[in-house]
This record gives sequence, C-alpha cells and structure tokens, in this order.
Amino acid sequence: MKDKTYFMKKAIAAAKRAAACDEVPVGAVIVKDGEIIATACNRKERDNCAVSHAEIVAIRKACKKLGNWYLEGCEMYVTLEPCPMCAGALINSRLDKLYFGAYDPKAGCCGSLYDLVRDGRFNHTLDAEGGIMREECAALLSNYFRLKRAEKKESEKNRKGE
Amino acid sequence: MKDKTYFMKKAIAAAKRAAACDEVPVGAVIVKDGEIIATACNRKERDNCAVSHAEIVAIRKACKKLGNWYLEGCEMYVTLEPCPMCAGALINSRLDKLYFGAYDPKAGCCGSLYDLVRDGRFNHTLDAEGGIMREECAALLSNYFRLKRAEKKESEKNRKGE
Repeated sequence: MKDKTYFMKKAIAAAKRAAACDEVPVGAVIVKDGEIIATACNRKERDNCAVSHAEIVAIRKACKKLGNWYLEGCEMYVTLEPCPMCAGALINSRLDKLYFGAYDPKAGCCGSLYDLVRDGRFNHTLDAEGGIMREECAALLSNYFRLKRAEKKESEKNRKGE
Repeated sequence: MKDKTYFMKKAIAAAKRAAACDEVPVGAVIVKDGEIIATACNRKERDNCAVSHAEIVAIRKACKKLGNWYLEGCEMYVTLEPCPMCAGALINSRLDKLYFGAYDPKAGCCGSLYDLVRDGRFNHTLDAEGGIMREECAALLSNYFRLKRAEKKESEKNRKGE
C-alpha cells in the first residue's frame, strides 16, 4: 500500500544516493494522484550551488514534468524539515501538503524556527506534518556527519605523521 | 562611478526585459569586487517553474561563473524585496550584502513580513538595505499590473461583444 511510509522510504532512498556522492543526505519525492512524479536529492556540491537542495531540484523536475509552475494537488515527502529557501519554494509552487522526516532545530522553517508554510499572510499556505520515519531520517544525517568527522580526524592524523 | 544607483539601474534594466517577455518585472545583479558577475530576471512563466525568481537565477549564474556555491564577497542588487525562498537562498549562498528597491508588504522577508537574512539563528546572516531607487522599482511593478488589468478588461469586453 502506498502510504506515508512508502513515499518517505523513497525519499530516504534518494537521500542515500546523495550520501554516496558525498553530499549531505537529504532526499525528496513529489506525489500527485498517488504516483511519484519527481524524485531528487541534495546536489549542492555536485552543482556547486547552494540553491540545489533536494526540494528545489524536485520542484523543478515536477514543474518540467507537468509543464506548469502550479503544483496544485501535489504533495512533497522530504527527509529533513525544509529551510527558509525550500519552505518558500513550497509556498511559491502552491503545493498542497508537506510531509517531512527529521526536524531541523538549526534551520527548519516548517515548525522549528518559523512556520512559514502556514503563515496566512502569504498568498498560499500548506499543511505540514513532521516526524514521518523521524529516527531513520535523522540517522541518515548523524551517520553521515559522524563519518565526515572520522575522515577528517584520520586525514589530520596522517598529515601529522608525514 | 559604480555606486548603488549604477548597479540598481542594471537590475532595473533586467526587470524591464522580464516585462517585455510578459513576466512580472523583477531583476537582479550580483556584484563581486565592483564588477557584475551575474544578471538575471524573473523567468517563472518561461521556465514554467515558480523557483525561477530573478534572485535564484542570478545565484545559479554566479555559482556557475565562480565554480563555487559559496558567494562570499558578493552583493546582490534586486528591484523587489526578496520573498522567503529568495531570502533563504541568499542565506544559503552566504552572500555578503543585499540591496533592494521596492518593499514587498505581501511577501517580503528582508524587513517587511520577516527579517530572515538578519536572523542570527541561521548559520549565516547578511545586511540588507532597502529603498534603493524605490519609486522606479515600484513603478515597474505597478505599471506592469495596470497594463495586465487593462488587457484583461479589454479581452473580456471583446469576448462579450462576440
């Protein structure tokens, strides 16, 4: 059955592909009428561009697929709570609903630092549900950063030993 | 002399190119070491994508030009106060400073509805100065929307007369 867990697992799979490319592992899918119309992961390092977050790449793919900037009837599943840029992109693209995994207390703008997507002063609002497969989504990030720290320590040790 | 007015005039010229393509006229330039490294205008309708605001397109161009997502030492001039998405993109790209023309009381996030770029809880902040050539920048938008309303009225009149 294609439930919230089904779609979040697809977003997690996308995030793992980012990690394999040495990118901070965040993945997203966009769903319309129960079908995935776009899958993306963070591409910031590969694109050399801080705009290339998973959500932005997914929105661009979905717009291309539908031939429309108006993503009415679409839902996004993303492994991490969107930052201000991505929360704003969700508003601008008029998505119906956001499901996210881990909360981001440092930059999250869908409940943590701000709740931009539910601010009725903008010309669109959308509902957000956080905490879908929260542990798995958070573990993706903590494992990635632990590995990065270990790699850095190892490389420093090797440099000192030279 | 290349002062704030010089660069804002370049952003206004870009906005006029958007209007000529039937796009909401917003233009932006990114400046590094006193030289323009990226110029862009709103491309939402042409790209069929709500992510294609002038600021995002300019950031992508600047990143491509510098081969780096880190836009340290760069300043943006944009004709309209950035929305949440674009304010977030400025933070994520680590720009040094933002200059904007017209204030946007409906969606502006650099002083109007929020002041995201100066929120010290994010991992980067930047200073924003609004009101540069404010009247000219605001007139671009009001003229564009006046024309659109007149066109719509005319087309409705013609339809009724058929």
